[in-house]
This record gives sequence, structure tokens and C-alpha cells, in this order.
Amino acid sequence: MLRGIIRGNIVSTRKQESLIGAKFMEVEIMQNGELTGQYLIAIDSVGAGIGETVLITVGSPARLALQNREMPTDAVIVGIVD
Amino acid sequence: MLRGIIRGNIVSTRKQESLIGAKFMEVEIMQNGELTGQYLIAIDSVGAGIGETVLITVGSPARLALQNREMPTDAVIVGIVD
Amino acid sequence: MLRGIIRGNIVSTRKQESLIGAKFMEVEIMQNGELTGQYLIAIDSVGAGIGETVLITVGSPARLALQNREMPTDAVIVGIVD
Amino acid sequence: MLRGIIRGNIVSTRKQESLIGAKFMEVEIMQNGELTGQYLIAIDSVGAGIGETVLITVGSPARLALQNREMPTDAVIVGIVD
Amino acid sequence: MLRGIIRGNIVSTRKQESLIGAKFMEVEIMQNGELTGQYLIAIDSVGAGIGETVLITVGSPARLALQNREMPTDAVIVGIVD
Repeated sequence: MLRGIIRGNIVSTRKQESLIGAKFMEVEIMQNGELTGQYLIAIDSVGAGIGETVLITVGSPARLALQNREMPTDAVIVGIVD
Repeated sequence: MLRGIIRGNIVSTRKQESLIGAKFMEVEIMQNGELTGQYLIAIDSVGAGIGETVLITVGSPARLALQNREMPTDAVIVGIVD
Repeated sequence: MLRGIIRGNIVSTRKQESLIGAKFMEVEIMQNGELTGQYLIAIDSVGAGIGETVLITVGSPARLALQNREMPTDAVIVGIVD
Repeated sequence: MLRGIIRGNIVSTRKQESLIGAKFMEVEIMQNGELTGQYLIAIDSVGAGIGETVLITVGSPARLALQNREMPTDAVIVGIVD
Repeated sequence: MLRGIIRGNIVSTRKQESLIGAKFMEVEIMQNGELTGQYLIAIDSVGAGIGETVLITVGSPARLALQNREMPTDAVIVGIVD
């Protein structure tokens, strides 16, 4: 899993129908608590907002955090770091 | 998920039968809105065209965006960024 | 699989319900027994502690080491290196 | 998906029984049509030969291109680029 | 799939019960037949030994090479290169 800070959100009006309602967040990845300049886009599942430090799960298991497991995503925010 | 700009398309006449009809797009990946010079090839599922900024899902979940989930692909364009 | 040293733990109070009880460890990855300065976050399944050298499985198979295979994680500590 | 040029083949006499008959090709990966010096080994599913430019699917979906989906492989050549 | 040379083995007495009996090998990855200084740890399924050049499958498909597909591993040695 990865830790990162939410830097912004991505808006996509024309998208897969199964992704309607998904909140796409752009997250800057951290390594050992330091920022890396590497980013990925993850769907939020915990109500996280810009500036918060979050935990992200990537790959096939990410969808286990979503109510709709049919969403075609490879990255989901699964927790907010204290 | 990744964000990128569609740079071109790839034509493959001799391919797996299950891939007939797939549109293979070459996408330049962005990080935080900046181009990286890194590319991947993704199947379009939303009618995106060259020059558009898109969202890409990679790995096993990508196929969830396709009508034919038997297509052997690891990357699908799932949205167009506004 | 990866080998690494547990450097710390991550606390997340607001998280996916299915992750309640999970111990998130920050692990520094090794290559050939040398530290790399690369980190990932893995859920512990073997009672490992800070400073121990561990084996980590990543991706979808990682969950096979957990009692609750519904946990949305992509990295699990599956052994402690002697 | 990745694009690359087949550079050679790998012979393995002692291998998993389920891999008998698989043709292992060493492929040099391209980015935007330029060679990268990065290689991977993929099983051919389309009758491709050395020197041809091919499309490769990696990860779990790769096996969808094989008649025997029990083959333990993470990369399959699924098309030949025109 | 990856090609590499087995450099050593990793001993883990305290590990997931499902991993009992697994032989963990540390493998140095090759690219186009040249060593890279990059390593991973894979479970052997073909009786390979230190110094042998092997084929490795990574990710979820790796377990298809094991008798016990419940082993939480992401890398398995599936062949010995001639």
C-alpha cells in the first residue's frame, strides 16, 4: 500500500457508466514520510479531502473497498492517516 | 489510475481473435498534469480521440470497462478528463 | 516477493471498516540484503515488529495470507527472515 | 499494453509441465516507437517471429490469450503491429 | 516473465502456515542476458539451485505453478533456462 497527500481532484464527465459517482483524487506519493513528486489517481472510499494524508491500495484488490466492485479502477483511497 | 494524452493509435491486423474490434491507443502518461515521456497502449472504451486527455485503468480491473471481458488487455481508457 | 526491514507503523483511525484491526507497517525494501531507501506499507500477518527483517507478498495474492480476505490491501508481511 | 520487438527466444527444457509447448520470446520494449533497452519474456500466441514488432499484454489478463489458461505466465504476445 | 540467476536462498522459520515447505530463492534479474543488480525473491517449483538461470513468473499467475495455490506468493520460478 502507498501513503500520499491528496493534491487535487480530476473531473471526467464522459466516462464509463459504472464510474458515475466516483471521486477521482490526484495523490502525491510519499516514501518514508517524504514527498516523491510521483502521482497517481485513486477513487476515494473514505471521504478524504485535498491536503489529507491517505492510504492507497492499488491493483485488483483496490475494488474490495468499493460498494460497487464492478468499477474499473486500479487504485482506491482506503484510509486517512492520523 | 493514470492520466495521459492520446498520441496515436496502433494497428494490428494479425492479432488474437478476441481483440478484433479493439482500438489500441498510444497514450503519453502525465504526472500532476505534466507530460512524462512515458507511454503505454490502452484499449479505448469511451470514444476518445487523439489529443484528448484521458483516464486509464491498468491491470486486471481494466477489463471491467469492456463489453467483452475476455479481451486479453491490461489497460483501458475509462474516461475523458474535462 | 520482497525482503525489507520494518521501520515504523502507520495509524489510520478513519478507514475502511474491513481494515479494522489491521496493523499497517512501513517497510524499507532491501535488494540482495542491502537497503534501498524505497518503502511500502504492508499489513502484518505474522506478528512482526519494528526492526525485524521480513518477507512481503504484493498484489492480489497478498490477501491469501489474511484471515479476512476481503481486506482491500495489496501488500502483506508473510514471514520473518531468520 | 506494451509494444516491442522480438529479439530472441528462450529455451527451457526443465520447466513446469503446464508450460510444455510454450514459445518464450525475449522482447525489447518500445516507448512511442523508440527502443528502450528494457526487456521482458512473453509467450507467443499469434505466431510472431524474431524481428517483428508486437503487442504484449502483461499480468493476470495475459493468459486470456492462451488456449491453456492454466499456464503460469504473466506476459503474452497478443498481436503483431502492422 | 523474467530471467535471472539464483544467488541464494532465504530462510524464514516464522512464517504463514501455508508457506511451510516453500523454498525462497533470491534471484538477480537479467535484461537481454545481462545482470541488472535488481533482485526479487521467488518460490522454486522446478528444483532449481544456486547459480542456475531461471524463468520467473510474477504476480497473481505465479501461483498456477504451485501444487498449493493458496500460498501467498507473487513470484515463482517456473523453468530453468538451458
